[in-house]
Amino acid sequence: MAHLMSTSCSIKISSSYRPCGQPLNQDRTVLPNSFTIKTSKSPFKRLVSKGQRAGRSCLVLATAAPVSKEVSANPRSGSDRSPNDSSKPQRVMVIGGDGYCGWATALHLSNKGYKVAIVDSLVRRLFDHQLGLDSLTPISSIHNRLRCWKAITGRTIELYIGDICDFEFLSETFNSFEPDVVVHFGEQRSAPYSMIDRSRAVFTQKNNVIGTLNVLFAIKEFREECHLVKLGTMGEYGTPNIDIEEGYITISHNGRTDTLPYPKQASSFYHLSKVHDSNNIAFTCKAWGIRATDLNQGVVYGVKTDETSMHEQLCNRLDYDGVFGTALNRFCVQAAVGHPLTVYGKGGQTRGYLDIRDTVQCVELAIANPAKPGEFRVFNQFTEQFSVNELAALVTKAGQKLGLDVQTISVPNPRVEAEEHYYNAKHTKLIELGLKPHLLSDSLLDSLLNFAIEFKDRVDTKQIMPSVSWKKIGVKPQTVPAN
Amino acid sequence: MAHLMSTSCSIKISSSYRPCGQPLNQDRTVLPNSFTIKTSKSPFKRLVSKGQRAGRSCLVLATAAPVSKEVSANPRSGSDRSPNDSSKPQRVMVIGGDGYCGWATALHLSNKGYKVAIVDSLVRRLFDHQLGLDSLTPISSIHNRLRCWKAITGRTIELYIGDICDFEFLSETFNSFEPDVVVHFGEQRSAPYSMIDRSRAVFTQKNNVIGTLNVLFAIKEFREECHLVKLGTMGEYGTPNIDIEEGYITISHNGRTDTLPYPKQASSFYHLSKVHDSNNIAFTCKAWGIRATDLNQGVVYGVKTDETSMHEQLCNRLDYDGVFGTALNRFCVQAAVGHPLTVYGKGGQTRGYLDIRDTVQCVELAIANPAKPGEFRVFNQFTEQFSVNELAALVTKAGQKLGLDVQTISVPNPRVEAEEHYYNAKHTKLIELGLKPHLLSDSLLDSLLNFAIEFKDRVDTKQIMPSVSWKKIGVKPQTVPAN
Repeated sequence: MAHLMSTSCSIKISSSYRPCGQPLNQDRTVLPNSFTIKTSKSPFKRLVSKGQRAGRSCLVLATAAPVSKEVSANPRSGSDRSPNDSSKPQRVMVIGGDGYCGWATALHLSNKGYKVAIVDSLVRRLFDHQLGLDSLTPISSIHNRLRCWKAITGRTIELYIGDICDFEFLSETFNSFEPDVVVHFGEQRSAPYSMIDRSRAVFTQKNNVIGTLNVLFAIKEFREECHLVKLGTMGEYGTPNIDIEEGYITISHNGRTDTLPYPKQASSFYHLSKVHDSNNIAFTCKAWGIRATDLNQGVVYGVKTDETSMHEQLCNRLDYDGVFGTALNRFCVQAAVGHPLTVYGKGGQTRGYLDIRDTVQCVELAIANPAKPGEFRVFNQFTEQFSVNELAALVTKAGQKLGLDVQTISVPNPRVEAEEHYYNAKHTKLIELGLKPHLLSDSLLDSLLNFAIEFKDRVDTKQIMPSVSWKKIGVKPQTVPAN
Repeated sequence: MAHLMSTSCSIKISSSYRPCGQPLNQDRTVLPNSFTIKTSKSPFKRLVSKGQRAGRSCLVLATAAPVSKEVSANPRSGSDRSPNDSSKPQRVMVIGGDGYCGWATALHLSNKGYKVAIVDSLVRRLFDHQLGLDSLTPISSIHNRLRCWKAITGRTIELYIGDICDFEFLSETFNSFEPDVVVHFGEQRSAPYSMIDRSRAVFTQKNNVIGTLNVLFAIKEFREECHLVKLGTMGEYGTPNIDIEEGYITISHNGRTDTLPYPKQASSFYHLSKVHDSNNIAFTCKAWGIRATDLNQGVVYGVKTDETSMHEQLCNRLDYDGVFGTALNRFCVQAAVGHPLTVYGKGGQTRGYLDIRDTVQCVELAIANPAKPGEFRVFNQFTEQFSVNELAALVTKAGQKLGLDVQTISVPNPRVEAEEHYYNAKHTKLIELGLKPHLLSDSLLDSLLNFAIEFKDRVDTKQIMPSVSWKKIGVKPQTVPAN
């Protein structure tokens, strides 16, 4: 069904190997041994040309490469999960598989024996270019990442480059890859980005809502049994003055009782887009029998997983800037470069947090224990709650142990949010499925801080302070200063 | 601020007059006396040409016309409301003012002394062309409607033709008209339309959500004090097994209490778009201090208001087809032409209903009693609850009185909805503001049925049956048969 014209080409690769963690020039990337890649004739045709049917997608398949002998991990070991006890591995499409959570998840699932395809428009990398931002860690191109993964593990991850808002493209990926599971990370995921200006607010809602609608239609049309695992956010709930349940709440009112969707109070155009998604997905589960799991994820911290640690070319991104950086990761980078930790307002803002190693574990658990047809299942995906002040104190203590002089300052809160509030969110469903949390510990903080110190020469301190204001957002495109 | 180049032209009009209710050829429309219209040089430039700044909007101003002596209504009588007790009339922008509710509202507000502008892309008329549908009543072009209104009442309604999803256009309307109030009907408003195929589902959500986002940004940027009166729908709530409150519900849970947004369970892509809107508006009230009233409207019936009855050229549309027709209006037309009343499924579906004369009254009450800055206020806008079976019984009885042989059939329900359920929705807030309901009575049903009989020769019976299935919606554009 997909009209993907492919040719093969060989690339001779040096056998030298750099251990992961060493900065390297991405253009002169080296990989163990030699391997073959199969790529479409015009891999970037899609990006520059519109309206032609053939060759619109870019499919990259790394094939027939020897497993590196220099990497100790043996991903075909007994830890492999045989999904659903079937001999044929489940086919998992990871939309947004080049991003922070998506990349770690795609590798993890591939390593566990799932057949994985990444679908990504790579627009997250474009945002960095446009806003003058960069990951703390140097990250390889998606093509080099996948070649490296193939070379190291012998496992192939297919790559479809395109925009899921383009239904013709998405249809081709479905008919070509035939997924059993779609893990959908493919959304604009920053609250501050959505609050830069009107055009970014509109982009965020249009991109996220229409992309997800298209995924739902593609499942209905092409893969009715496919399980949708959708990344939502704990931010959908806001900060109600009652306990937060997992997706639903039983309400007794005027002598009658019903279990209804938990009321949502999102507080950015990004968070709102996730609420819209949840409502759309819930409806299609009811109307069409779609099976879906909505993972309301907390704030993710950390950078290393078993798989991304295998080689420097597999290294994940780490954002510390005011637009894409999240609290704990940003604090560690600030501590490493001697920048005061920036607490927004009073710092009593409490949220759920989790280690990125638990993100990949949770997605795997959701896949291995799928929702039933017609079921819209909501899991709150985090392991611990912290206030911003508590995080600052933990990072200060860990930094001092490493000889860093860590200061904290309060900066005017760019957001509109309660700075002191009740917060108690349930998160038992993934534990019941077998999640073994990596709780935030001294050793993890040490490791994150050491990681930040290792890359501190790459930090642009001008990107640290919040630059986006919830109240000042306007209709004019915001200019980006060249500092 | 708006670059609207205008010229004047005179049209000589015959003095003959046709009483309202008589079918007439819209192309040979006649109006009382003579009058002058002022229109933009290229009124349709916007519709065919893109990318040029000047002349992108179409503004029609009817000026200096004598009030018809042949129309008995005297709209400048003591019934005029002086908004907010200020000597200067409030300026009300009615987005979607060419539609069923929008047209009746625009005239009503103009008649009450408000300064009114209609903003409309006229896409609702395009839907009829595309789907082969038509209003039961012959409706004049918006240009003739406004000329007629000016001629009869001496009142000017400005007209901006364009798409609010185009922010440049919307900005021009705001800066040109400078509204104190925006009444926003400008959305794709049919649940079946949104369930025709993927492209209509996506259109509905994109059009409604982005249009409303643009309105919010325009208010924030250009008219911060402006009161947004937004048409929502009772369908946002679905059919919970507990009482439906007006927008919010107080929940006690695990020993704590909070008042939260009422949980929503919308059941079409159209209804979902309204939920998305409500969430977006609520956020901007909190973050930016927008003042907004969300009117969760029930199913509207009827066609005549004081103003639309003044002249046949002011006549409102009445939809009876399977896509845009709503229950009671459709039943009356079915009874008039001898078509069985089509009850979907068991017919226990219960909803709130209101007369279109109450729609215009409710909007006026919301305007006259505005929300406070930062307030997101929700009113449930209906006057009575009926099940579909109850409506069918009422129409049967009224039809028999007029000598009609009224049959009822149950057709397979094209929707996914409960057909027997608890339903008790509060609707006291508009009553408290002074709403005097026009309850559904024998005389109203007689009048509606007689109206339907008058126009029964215009009925295309092939459009009556439901043609859109919630479960069968697919990704392929649905074809329209030429019957």
